[in-house]
Amino acid sequence: MAGRAFASDNWAGVHPDLLAALAAANDGHAPAYGEGDPYTARAEERFREVFGADACTFFVLTGTGANVLALGSLLRSHEAVICPEEAHVNADECGAPERFLGSKLLPVPAPDGKLTPALVESRARGFGVQHRVQPRVVSISQTTERGTVYTLAETRALAERAHALGLRVHMDGARIANAAAALGVSLREATRDAGVDVLSFGGTKNGALAAEAVVFFDAALAEGFAYARKQGLQLASKQRFVAVQLDALLAGELWRRNAGHANAMAARLAAAIGDLSGIDLAHPVEANAVFVRLPARARALARGPYPFHILDEASGLARLMTSWDTTAADVDGLAAALAAALRA
Amino acid sequence: MAGRAFASDNWAGVHPDLLAALAAANDGHAPAYGEGDPYTARAEERFREVFGADACTFFVLTGTGANVLALGSLLRSHEAVICPEEAHVNADECGAPERFLGSKLLPVPAPDGKLTPALVESRARGFGVQHRVQPRVVSISQTTERGTVYTLAETRALAERAHALGLRVHMDGARIANAAAALGVSLREATRDAGVDVLSFGGTKNGALAAEAVVFFDAALAEGFAYARKQGLQLASKQRFVAVQLDALLAGELWRRNAGHANAMAARLAAAIGDLSGIDLAHPVEANAVFVRLPARARALARGPYPFHILDEASGLARLMTSWDTTAADVDGLAAALAAALRA
Amino acid sequence: MAGRAFASDNWAGVHPDLLAALAAANDGHAPAYGEGDPYTARAEERFREVFGADACTFFVLTGTGANVLALGSLLRSHEAVICPEEAHVNADECGAPERFLGSKLLPVPAPDGKLTPALVESRARGFGVQHRVQPRVVSISQTTERGTVYTLAETRALAERAHALGLRVHMDGARIANAAAALGVSLREATRDAGVDVLSFGGTKNGALAAEAVVFFDAALAEGFAYARKQGLQLASKQRFVAVQLDALLAGELWRRNAGHANAMAARLAAAIGDLSGIDLAHPVEANAVFVRLPARARALARGPYPFHILDEASGLARLMTSWDTTAADVDGLAAALAAALRA
Amino acid sequence: MAGRAFASDNWAGVHPDLLAALAAANDGHAPAYGEGDPYTARAEERFREVFGADACTFFVLTGTGANVLALGSLLRSHEAVICPEEAHVNADECGAPERFLGSKLLPVPAPDGKLTPALVESRARGFGVQHRVQPRVVSISQTTERGTVYTLAETRALAERAHALGLRVHMDGARIANAAAALGVSLREATRDAGVDVLSFGGTKNGALAAEAVVFFDAALAEGFAYARKQGLQLASKQRFVAVQLDALLAGELWRRNAGHANAMAARLAAAIGDLSGIDLAHPVEANAVFVRLPARARALARGPYPFHILDEASGLARLMTSWDTTAADVDGLAAALAAALRA
Repeated sequence: MAGRAFASDNWAGVHPDLLAALAAANDGHAPAYGEGDPYTARAEERFREVFGADACTFFVLTGTGANVLALGSLLRSHEAVICPEEAHVNADECGAPERFLGSKLLPVPAPDGKLTPALVESRARGFGVQHRVQPRVVSISQTTERGTVYTLAETRALAERAHALGLRVHMDGARIANAAAALGVSLREATRDAGVDVLSFGGTKNGALAAEAVVFFDAALAEGFAYARKQGLQLASKQRFVAVQLDALLAGELWRRNAGHANAMAARLAAAIGDLSGIDLAHPVEANAVFVRLPARARALARGPYPFHILDEASGLARLMTSWDTTAADVDGLAAALAAALRA
Repeated sequence: MAGRAFASDNWAGVHPDLLAALAAANDGHAPAYGEGDPYTARAEERFREVFGADACTFFVLTGTGANVLALGSLLRSHEAVICPEEAHVNADECGAPERFLGSKLLPVPAPDGKLTPALVESRARGFGVQHRVQPRVVSISQTTERGTVYTLAETRALAERAHALGLRVHMDGARIANAAAALGVSLREATRDAGVDVLSFGGTKNGALAAEAVVFFDAALAEGFAYARKQGLQLASKQRFVAVQLDALLAGELWRRNAGHANAMAARLAAAIGDLSGIDLAHPVEANAVFVRLPARARALARGPYPFHILDEASGLARLMTSWDTTAADVDGLAAALAAALRA
Repeated sequence: MAGRAFASDNWAGVHPDLLAALAAANDGHAPAYGEGDPYTARAEERFREVFGADACTFFVLTGTGANVLALGSLLRSHEAVICPEEAHVNADECGAPERFLGSKLLPVPAPDGKLTPALVESRARGFGVQHRVQPRVVSISQTTERGTVYTLAETRALAERAHALGLRVHMDGARIANAAAALGVSLREATRDAGVDVLSFGGTKNGALAAEAVVFFDAALAEGFAYARKQGLQLASKQRFVAVQLDALLAGELWRRNAGHANAMAARLAAAIGDLSGIDLAHPVEANAVFVRLPARARALARGPYPFHILDEASGLARLMTSWDTTAADVDGLAAALAAALRA
Repeated sequence: MAGRAFASDNWAGVHPDLLAALAAANDGHAPAYGEGDPYTARAEERFREVFGADACTFFVLTGTGANVLALGSLLRSHEAVICPEEAHVNADECGAPERFLGSKLLPVPAPDGKLTPALVESRARGFGVQHRVQPRVVSISQTTERGTVYTLAETRALAERAHALGLRVHMDGARIANAAAALGVSLREATRDAGVDVLSFGGTKNGALAAEAVVFFDAALAEGFAYARKQGLQLASKQRFVAVQLDALLAGELWRRNAGHANAMAARLAAAIGDLSGIDLAHPVEANAVFVRLPARARALARGPYPFHILDEASGLARLMTSWDTTAADVDGLAAALAAALRA
């Protein structure tokens, strides 16, 4: 491809360190399915260093796989998930949670993509009524699908209210690296220490080829998860190659450098275009996404040299996403093109 | 790892050409999810060249994923799958087909792992009876889970009987490369031309990192499959990296070289140990697996420098599996160790 | 129980004619599962007389069973159902549709419980996008969960828009008798002739013990339904006793007398209390339900001699439901009690 | 219908006492869904009297419903059920367990339809292996699908072995009344005291219209079952009418009289035809079924005035089933017809 897109952080390729890790792991034979291979063991140990000695980590292949299986570890089929309407699990996974879990989602309209304790309470109803699904999990995305970031206090407040209501907390951390980088905290502080019970840890959008993990902060919740992963079509036979990608992201906090760079590029973009006449920032820019409302002549650029996604033609809402490999030149190029279009 | 194992062909690593293909594809941005990226388009075209201009191919991540979704494209939940008892879908996928599809498998004891028309008929019953699941699919593995290979005539006869009974034919081709290499035929001759309707095409055991495909020979059966793949947690966001692996295996028939080598190593192993006193070949050696019954002193080698799997302690059944990277020295080393153990 | 409740029409017992029909059918042996028994055949014929010679009817045991299986006949698991937020399938079936079908519901806030073409369009999106569930069915309840009734024109307009969008129309007719009685039309006019594709026909709330049906107006949609009914735990072994209940309701339009009476009692109740100071009618009273907002002192009557349901303590919303056996004295008693409470 | 069939005990109608119970319960209004109605409370109390003060009973509508939901209370989806190949859950429920539970059944060929500890052990394998479903439940039918009856000692031995293996015991008691009557023991002795954990209690084949129950002998297993029942489409709105049927069967051991009579009629039939030349008893006659191998000229009677089922044309296997209303004249009539056919 010629240029770098602002379409999604998964349009980006693989970080060179991860390609190198794949090559380094390609050394003869290793037990399949993570059943005793040293690469998996090492990566699991790395997750324990990061998230605590009793964290229990399972490597999977896709973000949807991580989310669906993580939720499944917390639910029986008559139990339900409270989540924002825009949540990836609700809006972008083609009903995979319902299909695989048989469970209902209880979506709530959430300003800037963020749940609040009050929104959770508005859906936490019907307990004990046999005709109603029983709320059991609160699922939040960090960063959110609107590019915003829960502060530690916000996450903590949500988790406390959820726990007080007898609910568990799942975090879709497809972009947890971007959130932790934005908050300037450790991955553990952003998740476990803030009250999260189970984390979908995202590697792919942070520079991996295909590597995600489900991290349990309460080992009891992980009981039986190995079988669920296999049933969920997420057990890689050559699992060492999944493990080394995540190991490489955690090593020396490569994740933070990748995410921090993406976040900085989004900030640069927001600064460059935020004041242009005709452009509205639709949400605060807190991580690696810039949501803007664009007039038609600017939306036409979506299929240009710096592709991006139009989310809603009616309102003109567009998403401009940066990634670990976005360059300042890319940002400036897009900003200039937008400015020119707006002047036209 | 020090030596190469005979445990499974998925203990092997990634063929260097495929690692090179991954690196070559790591060139800037490409649309995610296969939605317009040139690598996916090229690989799809390659599958059409191999399997026919109207073959319809979807890339997925795991063999279990390929099988479950392929079966799902052929079934409604009250419909059932006739398969050998030892079939991977029945015995080694932790009930994923039942979990994801809600459908019943109808397993049949099958000598040497092979279904026959008569075995299919023994299970193809209850049509029109509302209390019975309705047989709808015959699923066979090529090569079989016992290392044997259906001849073209056998596959054809099975497919004809299946079709005559109103059943469709799925082939679990996790090792279709080994079968086609053993038969000396093209991939198309081994599958579509022999009557298969939908193929799980295996890349991983043939030298890929994680790359499988579902290939439809009747495009009508593929209707809606893209949604099923997403629901089945098998849609890779950076799909180009899955596509290029399979492309590289098909290019210049690398698959045949990899599989042919593995098959030759199994033949070498069978020749070296087949006549040893105390060893029984349990099944014909037709591809890259050698099934033997071993006495206890030989089974002790399973955890030695050339690891292999004991399938049944009671009967002493062991599986010795070769892969694309097995060397003649590996074979000779294992054979010598077995011979020594038997002499002991 | 002493008095008759206004809690729900399924607090009522069985109409004497139906008890008599059960006794009459209890005459020796009859084939089980509806497989050739004359009672089932006769009832099926009765449904053909009412709904058209090619209507295809299946008897089931519960309203949730009818709804879930009817929807299942119209959906694959990646396809979705557009329905009002208050729809029984969405709010009162404990997630049974998601559990049994694996499909997603797309609920819409609907004033007075009624979908409109515009509301359908607001949810009929994402066609062809592999990340999104594919809208496939519009499900409406007639009467609605708010006691309102779609006019024939409203139903027709909805069905036309749905069909134009490639969607099918399911009607939850748990109270279709009340709707047809209110509209003064035939059951066929209220359903098939207005564009409905599949109907959940309710008998239980109209005076049956436990008898519902799924009626297909396009026989092609019924293909395989017998198996789905069995899988859905809805195939009664002594099916003749289900069949004769529905037969008795259809005979001589007993359904219309039962429903018409219930509707008349609701109208009487609305007339008696609608103008009381302190009571607000929350929805138009068009069938056999009166939704009112009551002050606390009136809500206290909910557990009195004329029980009714409080739906929301915060707003004071209460539902007063009449049934085939509600008497004018019951109505006048409740009205007097409410009036007294309000005066207190 | 003219005569009484030997086709199945669910071709029989409703015992007059139960019809009377239905009429008696048809007295004004009662809370729906068993939520506080006195009939349900009374029937639950009756089950506690019979099965122990801590037995926990849920009323459902169909035998398949009882079985599937009972199994579901014992399983997660990666867990499996060991059962005889002929088990109703495996052979006659159209895959409902797989569909609703997503779980795998592990059927075993079982002589005379009976599991043994050794047969259980042959399937209780793969524990801890993530590629294998995890055996979790042993399900037996009492009486069996072959008309045989587990002795108390046999049930106890099975339950002990199952429990020792970490498995739970489900009993499909669609004909538990016939078994307890045959054994001359109480319902509790035949089930709970013999080690059963969860019982599907059958009323329909014993003279009910449609009334089954799931009885938990460990209340902890019943946690969440109310929701599962609703999701499983088995919650009757007018539940009082289900409850009173079962209450009437338990009152004064009507179940034993009904079952004992049916058993006696089967014994009479076996005595009358067992020695006829050309007829082989295929299984011991221990309850209300007579399995015989018949020559073609006798099989022709299956559609005659005393209908019965041919199970297998090839072997001539036929099932002759008696019910609570079979008369000695019916038995003698069938026996005479068979004798005449054999002489012909």
